[in-house]
Amino acid sequence: MADRFLRRGDPSGIVSKLCAKAILERNLIGEGDRILIAVSGGKDSTVLCWALSALKRAVKVNYELAALHISSDFCSCCKKAVLAEKLEQFGIPLTDLFVPVVGRLKEGRRMNCYWCSTQRRTELLKYAVRGGFNKIALGHHLDDIVETFFMNLCSKGELCAMPVKLSYRKYPVTLIRPLAYLEESQIVSCAAEQDILKAACTCPYGINSSRRDMRKRIAAFTGNSGALKRRILGALLPEAGALLEE
Amino acid sequence: MADRFLRRGDPSGIVSKLCAKAILERNLIGEGDRILIAVSGGKDSTVLCWALSALKRAVKVNYELAALHISSDFCSCCKKAVLAEKLEQFGIPLTDLFVPVVGRLKEGRRMNCYWCSTQRRTELLKYAVRGGFNKIALGHHLDDIVETFFMNLCSKGELCAMPVKLSYRKYPVTLIRPLAYLEESQIVSCAAEQDILKAACTCPYGINSSRRDMRKRIAAFTGNSGALKRRILGALLPEAGALLEE
Repeated sequence: MADRFLRRGDPSGIVSKLCAKAILERNLIGEGDRILIAVSGGKDSTVLCWALSALKRAVKVNYELAALHISSDFCSCCKKAVLAEKLEQFGIPLTDLFVPVVGRLKEGRRMNCYWCSTQRRTELLKYAVRGGFNKIALGHHLDDIVETFFMNLCSKGELCAMPVKLSYRKYPVTLIRPLAYLEESQIVSCAAEQDILKAACTCPYGINSSRRDMRKRIAAFTGNSGALKRRILGALLPEAGALLEE
Repeated sequence: MADRFLRRGDPSGIVSKLCAKAILERNLIGEGDRILIAVSGGKDSTVLCWALSALKRAVKVNYELAALHISSDFCSCCKKAVLAEKLEQFGIPLTDLFVPVVGRLKEGRRMNCYWCSTQRRTELLKYAVRGGFNKIALGHHLDDIVETFFMNLCSKGELCAMPVKLSYRKYPVTLIRPLAYLEESQIVSCAAEQDILKAACTCPYGINSSRRDMRKRIAAFTGNSGALKRRILGALLPEAGALLEE
């Protein structure tokens, strides 16, 4: 009952409420946290910036927000100026870091999503540690988590889900995914309402064909039912039992 | 390579090989085991009888086989005489046990699959303990295991799979599922080859509609690919890595 209430209202309100619910239930943000938000220039991470900034103004917990965008010799946000302006409105300073992902390839090796993301993830972690950030916030949502679970199950034969909170042994940093309870469609609606879509760009490489195929198969399997996707998420994040309340 | 070889040949050979592989890899049967096979009268458990009986003649491990069929006031095998004759050919004695599942219902409660199967499972376990059996063999196959996993995921929001080997705390008995590596289609072919289909009957209640619906959705999701279903099984039974070899 309570949970159904959280998914009603205007799109921005829904994002705020479900983001706050994830943060509270999973203890994602605490007093004095220095949070680095990884921004791609896409709708998800930009909505995450908006949500964390709005929440900061609404709660008594003090935390600091900054954003990092990684440009590369392969891909960069095509609307960086619009993105910077948006983030300035949210009061979040944006830094651009250049990482030559193509330049680092060994001879004869081709660029691929795995290589690019690994390179960028390492640089993100190093930057956070250098800058004294203790948290890194990523914009993955419920559909990303469900999709990655099915990709791991069907491609790798592994039962393995994206965690909502992950501490590294090697780095003094914790990854958090505050949008974990939100469906992509809810984020899109919020982005439209907050005039964020104009700033959004995507990787020119696009998503790879096996991921696109998986997305279609999941949509057919779940009938795009939000309730079913939340039930699956509940299985992947065992303590998210409250999500199942209808 | 080795694994692809196991899935080639005549249907009975495939069942024998993949059943032996599961037994060896998962240590399902040992010297001196007294194994009670739960037979419904359906193709799966009858093929299991055939496979364990054929294996017994081929290996040097001594184990004893017996079969139990549970009749009830709701459902009983309609071809019990044919079943008994088949099992006699395999050298497996068959006992029929009557359990009044409907009679045990509290007033106002309706029959359902969960109630019926719980009642029958308890009686099966008690019978095995009374008879000094240390193993109970069930006829569930790869498709059953994958289907149950998805049912648990989507209906209960739980990551939970049928184990291939399960020891009970309450009873001195271990459940085994020697057909775990076999697809239903492989069992059907073997049943036809061994002239078992004639003896096969199914529950008059049929499968419930949510299970039927799930079966369709899994078929669409996996495209009925045996390789994909084995990969999923590999995730559910972590040590079944060898299954993935193509």
